[in-house]
Amino acid sequence: MSATAARPPAATEVDQWLERFGAALERGDAAGAAELFAEDSYWRDLVAFTWNIKTVEGRAGITDMLEHTLARVQPHGWHATEEPTTADGVTEAWIEFETAVGRGKGHLRLIDGQAWTLLTVLDELQGHEQGLGPRRPKGVVHGADPERQTWLEDREREAEELGRTIQPYVVIVGGGQGGIALGARLRQLRVPTIIVERNPRPGDSWRNRYKSLCLHDPVWYDHLPYVKFPPNWPVFSPKDKIGDWLEMYTRVMELNYWGSTTATRARYDDGAGEWVLTVEREGEEIELRPKQLVLATGMSGRPYTPEFPGMDRFKGDQHHSSKHPGPDAYRGKRAVVVGSNNSAHDICAALWEHGADVTMVQRSSTHVVRSDTLMDIALSGLYSEQAVAAGMTTEKADLTFASLPYRIMAGLQVPVYEQIRERDADFYARLEAAGFQHDWGEDGSGLFMKYLRRASGYYIDVGASELVAGGQIKLQPGQVDHLTEDVVVMADGTELPADVVVYATGYSSMNGAVAELISQEVADRVGKVWGLGSDTTKDPGPWEGEQRNMWKPTQQEGLWFHGGNLHQSRHYSLYLALQLKARAEGIDTPVYGLQEVHHTR
Amino acid sequence: MSATAARPPAATEVDQWLERFGAALERGDAAGAAELFAEDSYWRDLVAFTWNIKTVEGRAGITDMLEHTLARVQPHGWHATEEPTTADGVTEAWIEFETAVGRGKGHLRLIDGQAWTLLTVLDELQGHEQGLGPRRPKGVVHGADPERQTWLEDREREAEELGRTIQPYVVIVGGGQGGIALGARLRQLRVPTIIVERNPRPGDSWRNRYKSLCLHDPVWYDHLPYVKFPPNWPVFSPKDKIGDWLEMYTRVMELNYWGSTTATRARYDDGAGEWVLTVEREGEEIELRPKQLVLATGMSGRPYTPEFPGMDRFKGDQHHSSKHPGPDAYRGKRAVVVGSNNSAHDICAALWEHGADVTMVQRSSTHVVRSDTLMDIALSGLYSEQAVAAGMTTEKADLTFASLPYRIMAGLQVPVYEQIRERDADFYARLEAAGFQHDWGEDGSGLFMKYLRRASGYYIDVGASELVAGGQIKLQPGQVDHLTEDVVVMADGTELPADVVVYATGYSSMNGAVAELISQEVADRVGKVWGLGSDTTKDPGPWEGEQRNMWKPTQQEGLWFHGGNLHQSRHYSLYLALQLKARAEGIDTPVYGLQEVHHTR
Repeated sequence: MSATAARPPAATEVDQWLERFGAALERGDAAGAAELFAEDSYWRDLVAFTWNIKTVEGRAGITDMLEHTLARVQPHGWHATEEPTTADGVTEAWIEFETAVGRGKGHLRLIDGQAWTLLTVLDELQGHEQGLGPRRPKGVVHGADPERQTWLEDREREAEELGRTIQPYVVIVGGGQGGIALGARLRQLRVPTIIVERNPRPGDSWRNRYKSLCLHDPVWYDHLPYVKFPPNWPVFSPKDKIGDWLEMYTRVMELNYWGSTTATRARYDDGAGEWVLTVEREGEEIELRPKQLVLATGMSGRPYTPEFPGMDRFKGDQHHSSKHPGPDAYRGKRAVVVGSNNSAHDICAALWEHGADVTMVQRSSTHVVRSDTLMDIALSGLYSEQAVAAGMTTEKADLTFASLPYRIMAGLQVPVYEQIRERDADFYARLEAAGFQHDWGEDGSGLFMKYLRRASGYYIDVGASELVAGGQIKLQPGQVDHLTEDVVVMADGTELPADVVVYATGYSSMNGAVAELISQEVADRVGKVWGLGSDTTKDPGPWEGEQRNMWKPTQQEGLWFHGGNLHQSRHYSLYLALQLKARAEGIDTPVYGLQEVHHTR
Repeated sequence: MSATAARPPAATEVDQWLERFGAALERGDAAGAAELFAEDSYWRDLVAFTWNIKTVEGRAGITDMLEHTLARVQPHGWHATEEPTTADGVTEAWIEFETAVGRGKGHLRLIDGQAWTLLTVLDELQGHEQGLGPRRPKGVVHGADPERQTWLEDREREAEELGRTIQPYVVIVGGGQGGIALGARLRQLRVPTIIVERNPRPGDSWRNRYKSLCLHDPVWYDHLPYVKFPPNWPVFSPKDKIGDWLEMYTRVMELNYWGSTTATRARYDDGAGEWVLTVEREGEEIELRPKQLVLATGMSGRPYTPEFPGMDRFKGDQHHSSKHPGPDAYRGKRAVVVGSNNSAHDICAALWEHGADVTMVQRSSTHVVRSDTLMDIALSGLYSEQAVAAGMTTEKADLTFASLPYRIMAGLQVPVYEQIRERDADFYARLEAAGFQHDWGEDGSGLFMKYLRRASGYYIDVGASELVAGGQIKLQPGQVDHLTEDVVVMADGTELPADVVVYATGYSSMNGAVAELISQEVADRVGKVWGLGSDTTKDPGPWEGEQRNMWKPTQQEGLWFHGGNLHQSRHYSLYLALQLKARAEGIDTPVYGLQEVHHTR
């Protein structure tokens, strides 16, 4: 496509760049294509070029990636899909392209005519499109057919056969929001899948948690694929309401969901190229043989409780936060909550509201952001009612977010949190005056980077911080030394008399789930799950550029990890599902840049 | 607002008309406002002016309506909401306005600067807006509150109290799609409501029907309020799938749905201004005292089976179509299906597919339209994937449809069916050659008018007609005279040996439901339900202009009817809900033009 004089400058700039870029790619000129990027540049690819989730950096990185992928991918047909825009010297464009096997989308940022960032994502596989919109199923096949089965008969037969006489291609272990979202994608891609979940009903992993729990992310950020929350859905969904939604979603999306089912052990049969997975389904042991095994057991699937001397002698109630029943039984009681992140704050506030005497044990500094401020400053451009009104779709918001490589994201987040610090200066002053140890992340990059790096170390304030600042929730800094029959004793000797101790001490790595389900050997081979290699607390270097092991090939054939918050479950489920679908269809999927393993847990 | 020279002619025409119209209304000049309409003109009002569903005709009708309503309604702020368009000499505009109590929307058609049609609808009541989008609930109230109840606790308490210690303002009898859609609207308007349904679970009224049943209307026509079907939803939903959707919808919309509950009797207590409604809920008799009673028992709620001599002697299976279990038990058997509308065709086709010997008894002529043709020619502009792609929203499609007064609708439908007749000429020739008695409605206005007038007399062909044309389904014209032990004997003496007889003979009027639940006296007072007074078969004159008794005040204080297909349930549920909400809030609701009763059933 040639640029014409009548087009606006941004459009012309993008058209010209895409034309030169496309031409270089078509003549197999990796270095020529890389020359179109700035020296300091990033190409993030979700599956389209690399069959991986991969960011390459600078011209050398781009050249290397293209040299390994170009001949097979055969990218072509690059074009902008809407009017490009320019602001602050950066021209941005939404683009589409095709490859030898599918259709892709992307996002481009140009500075001075050179690419600064490029995002490419595979959107669908040619010939294996999802049955959506114009491709939706007809439902009833018109005409007369003596072999006709009704929808209900088909569903019942499938439920009976799958996992019994017909093996699923994929088994997803873990039926929380992650497993459910991925299951829905795979269903739409016609990949036979079973989700196994130890709880009886979809949504139970939410229902079973402490009763005051609400989502700390707002509704616009939390949509599942395909079925959006309706316009009356609350901004912050109560846990039981999100549980109901997940249950109905599983039903109407026709997922093969095995509740009350525990995956007990798995091994990869190299010869057969498949997993031998043993599950216990309502007391019955069943052996499944899927080609692909996805662990979606969750960042919060395996509670971590520290071992303190005397825990066995303590006579009150004690439990991990994930088992906390709620405050009702503790009116007038003395509660000690060990930990100072989200769960600890929520539980302390609910206990205080129910008339308990509450002490929060802060063992290390915590990053706090007020929910309103976070929504207003950090999220409103992409995920808010205003964004919706301005025409921002969930998919576009997700791709916008995905278009920022992790290497530069932290730097872009710093000014956001500087703005937050300024707006809520009084709030932070009150909190710190009460003795609360507060931080902004080691490089000041705030909440979202902490989440991506370590998935811990923060609280999104929905009210507990004022109770901390006001002294209603007592604050006890330091480490727990031991427990007696009725006291939590701190390392400095402080005694905290307690009727109940809640260990809001977080969760273990998904790597541990691999060791438990498969073997320590496989766990060590695939290594640590989550984190970016940012060389900050709980996220050791070297830099990896993408989240470790999430949604992409691992060092173990046929083993995948899926999860994250609702936004990540929604967004990355598509790319993981496309990787699985391609394998199910026998499409060649050579992986470029398979991650190395630097840490085992 | 003054028109400026730069605006396109259509916009200027609309702006000028609205300015003159608004000025006349503001100075209380009913006749002056009516002068802005053509002699041959229609103003259809849904609740905004009339607290009724009412079409007035011509300048005299408009003047009369305005003289009775203007002082109270105080309409103002008329403006177009998007660029008006002109085609074939008709300028069309989407408009908004305000009244003393709420905000309205509408649609205007001008010919030569005069109004031909005007639609006005009340969209929301000031101060009682629904909590949608920017008004959605926050879900969790931030801060600390010792009185805090969780969402689950609130829901459980409400379920316990409503109908026991706290009386609902509205009871809806009938929990099919109609009752559910209205229940959802009332929930969003915060009107305490109980839905009572004799079946255990929402959706059972679909699940319990013959197994091959699918919706004959396409998905774009069938959305419920608030939660749209997802993009993977089939065009024609199988009955069990729509059943599941209704069940999940009831759950996530938090409706107070009493399944396994039968309304046994009701009387209006004039003194108290409320109903005394007795229901049997899982064996327990409960007395409810709602102010408003809505019958949503459905156009297909009360099966009608004719009495033929010998039915008591017949030794095979015989049942009304609503009780037909499906074809599985009838392989190799002889089936006689009495009737030739939708159910009869569906059941005949499924029986033939399962190897039964099938005869359809056609007692009167039937209108048939092929589903594909109907969708393409009659629906695609408003309800189709193409319409969605062109930016047509469900709400806008519904309002467009509503903007055509019934008086002129039949005339506008005739050319549509002429086009259908032409396209499918071969199909109709084959069908008639097989002896099928076919009609196009008495005035050639086709399927939708038949539905609005009598809700019977047609089949949307999804395959059975070719079986009729091909002789696989045998056709027997005429009336049934009597049955013997194993034969259906026709009036002309023809004998139809039968192992099973299905009476696909339709349903009784909702008026009968009033007689059963309340009294014959009240049934006679409210009169016939459904139909327009078109003076055609089963819809006697005089002309009434709107569907009798549906979604609007009746001659019985506090008694309402709701129902229709999914489109009507969705669209009219808003206007019925607003009428109920206004009464719940004590807003003055004088009804203009309360319908007279010309027929009792």
